[in-house]
Amino acid sequence: MDPMQRIEQALSAALSSTEVPGAPPRLAAAMRHAVFPGGARVRPRLCVAVALACGDDDPGLTDAAAVALELLHCASLVHDDLPCFDDSPMRRGVPSVHSAFGERLAVLSGDALIVLAFQALAAAPARHPQRLASLLGLIARGVGQPHGIVAGQAWECEPQVSLRDYQRAKTGALFAAATMAGAEAAGGAPATWRALGEWLGEAYQVADDIRDVAADPLLLGKPVGRDQALGRPSMAAAHGLLGAVAHFQQLVERAAAAVPDCRGAARLRALVRAESERLVPAALCDQLAQTHARAVA
Amino acid sequence: MDPMQRIEQALSAALSSTEVPGAPPRLAAAMRHAVFPGGARVRPRLCVAVALACGDDDPGLTDAAAVALELLHCASLVHDDLPCFDDSPMRRGVPSVHSAFGERLAVLSGDALIVLAFQALAAAPARHPQRLASLLGLIARGVGQPHGIVAGQAWECEPQVSLRDYQRAKTGALFAAATMAGAEAAGGAPATWRALGEWLGEAYQVADDIRDVAADPLLLGKPVGRDQALGRPSMAAAHGLLGAVAHFQQLVERAAAAVPDCRGAARLRALVRAESERLVPAALCDQLAQTHARAVA
Repeated sequence: MDPMQRIEQALSAALSSTEVPGAPPRLAAAMRHAVFPGGARVRPRLCVAVALACGDDDPGLTDAAAVALELLHCASLVHDDLPCFDDSPMRRGVPSVHSAFGERLAVLSGDALIVLAFQALAAAPARHPQRLASLLGLIARGVGQPHGIVAGQAWECEPQVSLRDYQRAKTGALFAAATMAGAEAAGGAPATWRALGEWLGEAYQVADDIRDVAADPLLLGKPVGRDQALGRPSMAAAHGLLGAVAHFQQLVERAAAAVPDCRGAARLRALVRAESERLVPAALCDQLAQTHARAVA
Repeated sequence: MDPMQRIEQALSAALSSTEVPGAPPRLAAAMRHAVFPGGARVRPRLCVAVALACGDDDPGLTDAAAVALELLHCASLVHDDLPCFDDSPMRRGVPSVHSAFGERLAVLSGDALIVLAFQALAAAPARHPQRLASLLGLIARGVGQPHGIVAGQAWECEPQVSLRDYQRAKTGALFAAATMAGAEAAGGAPATWRALGEWLGEAYQVADDIRDVAADPLLLGKPVGRDQALGRPSMAAAHGLLGAVAHFQQLVERAAAAVPDCRGAARLRALVRAESERLVPAALCDQLAQTHARAVA
């Protein structure tokens, strides 16, 4: 099965498992709205790609890990969009959860999606309980204090912010959890997969900064220029757009080089480069270089 | 060690594990504020009491389960207190998290406490990975959709509410998770311990309704009369105070009768009755009966 189709099916099964008689229906609807239709499903695709490269000998556990990662990511988007944070009216081209269902159900659906991530892990076929225990720790650490994505968001509430701590936690942590979880689910060695996730996470964050400044709002499905409007730390703001693009390309090469030796290494490296083209198209880089050349001429 | 001391130490260790260099300090402070000083620690005490009654042969796992239950409870209080829900300025006699740290850190500290609950489970000594997998499922189900405490809170956002569904999810689910988790952590049979948790949860909810109408705000550490002010479903409002007290006493007896046969059964039943006296003192019942007698005279 195509990995994307596999992920959508597993996500759908996880949501459906909670949609039973006796469940509050508006919470169910808000949770579904937060997860479908999805974005690029970058983290679960990364998890599945690494698991496949490691043999994927327990696909049910891989699916559970991929589902958990995506649900945690969706939960973070719902809470980041809240009025007290970004106050985003739109997400992925449709109204954000709080716009569609109100603030209370946005808080609760984020909470419920966090918990559903762990319910999905618990519901995985119990073929490798020791792997499950390790997965639980890996994934929870990618989200919580001190260095996970919730900590990353919390850096926005601090008077002083280290750009590196902020971006590592806000994006890098869940990417690293994704590669390590893919390895762990398939019986591989998670530690050797951490660097790939960290470089990709950093690249993704820089790409997001670039797109926030440079890209077309229709392509992103959310308003652009918000990081700047919200006074958020941003690589593009700190180093200029052209420097950010060069930095992005360097990070992608580091990520590709960090793929450990394994049967699927070549395929994974190709995937990393294809993903980078999707994030920051070469055409956008050329256009930025030309604009810069005209400006300094 | 005294169970209460054991719980406080385990909670303190869980919080301390996240308070490391590179962690956002205000989030750390908000999390600590949400957990210390605590309330009665009812759910973790129940978990530890059941584990002890079942032999408590893996105390590290019992502690992890107890910590997870209390952190999830604290997280729910932080989010319930948010301006979009109860807008409570106070909790346990001190400012609520959003009053002390702002709304954004209240959302994030709730999220981080939910995740820390699962980090605590993952960090338990890996002596019984199969028990851990089951604990994870038990505890997550007590919190999430369709019947956990987040679902309970979500019933407040529905146009039509079943009082039974609401109370079972809002309170009963985490009590049932507490008794079952205590049994599972000690290698017991969780299913036989579910009824005790469910009856106690229902009793606790009725007690809360009674106290919301009748008790002294200084004893509760939070404003009274809020359920009524917020238009929440309440047993005391539905059946009158005296009926609610009778119902509470009936539920406590059912809980005591639901303690399965085990070495510690007598001790557990005594604990259940002591807890009921703490929740709804006999003196309060007498006072209510007299007030009622005068009113109908």
